[in-house]
Amino acid sequence: MPGAGEKRPGRIAERLRSLGLFTDLYELTMLRAYREIGLAETAVFSLFVRRLPEERNFLVACGLDDFLEELEALRFEDDDIAYLRREGFPADFLGWLADFRFSGDVFAVPEGTPVFANEPILEVVAPIGEAQIIETLAINQIGFETLIASKAARVVAAASGHAVIDFGSRRAHGIDAAIKAARASYIAGAVSTSNVLAGRLYGIPIAGTMAHSFVQAFDDEMDAFRAFARVYPETVLLVDTYDTLEGVKKVIALAEELGDAFKVRAVRLDSGDLAGLAREARALLDGAGLEEVGIFVSGGLDEAKIAAMLAAGAPIDGFGVGTDLVVSDDAPYLDIVYKLTEYAGEGRIKLSSGKRTLPGRKQVFRLVEGGLAVQDTIARADEALPGTPLLKQVMRAGRRLDEPRPTADIRAQCLDAIASLPSALRTLEKAAPYPVAVSGALAEDEREVRERLVEANRR
Amino acid sequence: MPGAGEKRPGRIAERLRSLGLFTDLYELTMLRAYREIGLAETAVFSLFVRRLPEERNFLVACGLDDFLEELEALRFEDDDIAYLRREGFPADFLGWLADFRFSGDVFAVPEGTPVFANEPILEVVAPIGEAQIIETLAINQIGFETLIASKAARVVAAASGHAVIDFGSRRAHGIDAAIKAARASYIAGAVSTSNVLAGRLYGIPIAGTMAHSFVQAFDDEMDAFRAFARVYPETVLLVDTYDTLEGVKKVIALAEELGDAFKVRAVRLDSGDLAGLAREARALLDGAGLEEVGIFVSGGLDEAKIAAMLAAGAPIDGFGVGTDLVVSDDAPYLDIVYKLTEYAGEGRIKLSSGKRTLPGRKQVFRLVEGGLAVQDTIARADEALPGTPLLKQVMRAGRRLDEPRPTADIRAQCLDAIASLPSALRTLEKAAPYPVAVSGALAEDEREVRERLVEANRR
Repeated sequence: MPGAGEKRPGRIAERLRSLGLFTDLYELTMLRAYREIGLAETAVFSLFVRRLPEERNFLVACGLDDFLEELEALRFEDDDIAYLRREGFPADFLGWLADFRFSGDVFAVPEGTPVFANEPILEVVAPIGEAQIIETLAINQIGFETLIASKAARVVAAASGHAVIDFGSRRAHGIDAAIKAARASYIAGAVSTSNVLAGRLYGIPIAGTMAHSFVQAFDDEMDAFRAFARVYPETVLLVDTYDTLEGVKKVIALAEELGDAFKVRAVRLDSGDLAGLAREARALLDGAGLEEVGIFVSGGLDEAKIAAMLAAGAPIDGFGVGTDLVVSDDAPYLDIVYKLTEYAGEGRIKLSSGKRTLPGRKQVFRLVEGGLAVQDTIARADEALPGTPLLKQVMRAGRRLDEPRPTADIRAQCLDAIASLPSALRTLEKAAPYPVAVSGALAEDEREVRERLVEANRR
Repeated sequence: MPGAGEKRPGRIAERLRSLGLFTDLYELTMLRAYREIGLAETAVFSLFVRRLPEERNFLVACGLDDFLEELEALRFEDDDIAYLRREGFPADFLGWLADFRFSGDVFAVPEGTPVFANEPILEVVAPIGEAQIIETLAINQIGFETLIASKAARVVAAASGHAVIDFGSRRAHGIDAAIKAARASYIAGAVSTSNVLAGRLYGIPIAGTMAHSFVQAFDDEMDAFRAFARVYPETVLLVDTYDTLEGVKKVIALAEELGDAFKVRAVRLDSGDLAGLAREARALLDGAGLEEVGIFVSGGLDEAKIAAMLAAGAPIDGFGVGTDLVVSDDAPYLDIVYKLTEYAGEGRIKLSSGKRTLPGRKQVFRLVEGGLAVQDTIARADEALPGTPLLKQVMRAGRRLDEPRPTADIRAQCLDAIASLPSALRTLEKAAPYPVAVSGALAEDEREVRERLVEANRR
């Protein structure tokens, strides 16, 4: 075969090798300035979402494991350093960067935990330059998986027990997004993904059988079904390439042709009025004694369409959900930020924009009564309030404290945690906000910091 | 420093090393079936967008260079093969996969070219299994960069000559998206990006100076400005951490303090009523004789807000645009597909869904009159119609025909091509659709294929 020869990884592998450069330039310019000015005290940065998107009653924290792995791997390689030299950074700064390792502490909410506006998902305690340089990576990685897990929780809720499969890789925003959307969707309750690489990297079950192109490669759809079922007896046949119900009839004809050797598990409908076609397909299959053949649908699905189809009694066994899930179509980003909250032991906040930042290192206490979460309180990290503390130390001096958990374990814990939310939050409709309080001690800290800053900037 | 030691690339590097597995499972199941059934004839697949998003008058084709590089690098590594073995794929198929190299031909529209609905952006000619296995990668990579370049063209149009800088990395959907959004935005007219890695990989100018956290690390904002300007005399100072206009007054005080040594290029406003604050800041600066200090704004910007601020006469010199640009907030995906259009020399299409697929290999002819594009015609690849043919062969037998072009050259060509579109298409408002015809010969092919398929499936 032509095109053989050595692999040429080129920029492809470099993209994720050079994680140090995966940052906004201003982090590097600030880092150099901190060094030259001599600002090297410990800082606390807090990662949180300012406001929930309109159609979300809760978020699902996700992406921590990937982020911690990247943090441990974060380096500035020789060619990164050479590039920064050409961009005008001075030699002593670059020498320091070449030896850079993240040496800080990280506290975080476990993956799969429901979180709300203003609650810290993650806090970093490190020399200010180190805590600063990871800002872009932290927001990008945890923000995206949290975005998708939060969307997937809605899709899974809408499917009310029926299987949801992530089909979104082709429409996800790039390679990293496709893989991580698969992970986040699975954690929030999808049963599998079509993305094979995500399956291998994260141990997620993979799913998929045939596309229209397979059917089209034959002149006659029946020949395509016959051939595919010979290779994969227990498959799912895609029946809508030419005419959905005619396709179903060909599956029935194949069952008659094969007799006991017919093992096809389901048909897949990918276009048209899916609920109506599912009903008609069900009637045809049942009429032929093929009650055990399931009906699987896909094509432009989101949580509202799934809920509507099930509410209308459509006999559907599973849903392949793609684009709307992996781009979080109704809310394609989170208002997620990473803010300095303490420097050299003193609380820090912004004043001007009306955006609240809670100073210092914090903890979130979740009060659970009778298995149901009833209130969260954001508090100082050194307070001991009733309820379960959500943030745990996950990294000390640049080293993870625990091995990565199996993704299936995170998923199980996530589904339990979602199930313990008040039921109104778990519907597709906007519910009254879950109560999140700020402790008296933390509110007092905030007031003091504000007064100090107003005073210092009054001159 | 703790945390030192050997780099642990782990899954990070693997994600882009194992490009073969970056596919939907059904591509692999079909590939195995094609082999076992003996379907190995040449296929043509066509990549195109079915419908433009509501708020787009044209798209900007982008992502080809990355895709071709990935296609050349596409391999199944030992651990990929081992994974697929555990997933039940048979040994002979896996042996074949281990030697897999893409060996096909690729025809494509040059990056930076405006394209419209149904026009092939790329066509692949290869043995059917090879053409099939790259489906997910092709849609994902070219779809995303095209999505962002198309959005960026609007933002750049709104800024009407003022600088647009990509600030979106933190809110992009993962690492790959952040880097490629920077590339696509630059190609469509942004002047630079904050993403340092994108700067290194693609030769894009990088930009960025300071964040609020730098200011917050000092008690007094004035001390922060003084310190930063000492390290970077020709910098941009962020003035809204506590009170925007007070911040501007401190910049003026710094100018008085430094005299001729004051070289600050601009102030940045990142919150509040940006247009109003820009006017007041301009008046303050001008009143102090600092006419040469520019005003740069950022914070939740999109094309509509930019256009409104400039229409209101806001004295703004440049725009940092983040989230809305890199997630293409108003249209976060394209209806982009990769469809079998020919197999074994015969045209192929789908029938059932009302979605049109044009059969065979195609060409797009763009008629330009007086420097202005007036009509496109989608034709058979072997036709010779008036106008410029947009698709060119870019890969033969798995090898690129040309070296990657400098990104700046692609950008220049893109800006020229956009400038040659009818002016109504280049506004933010929805315009009458640009005329795209289908040649008589291609329409006739489509009719014949349809009749043949209806006949073959009537049995």
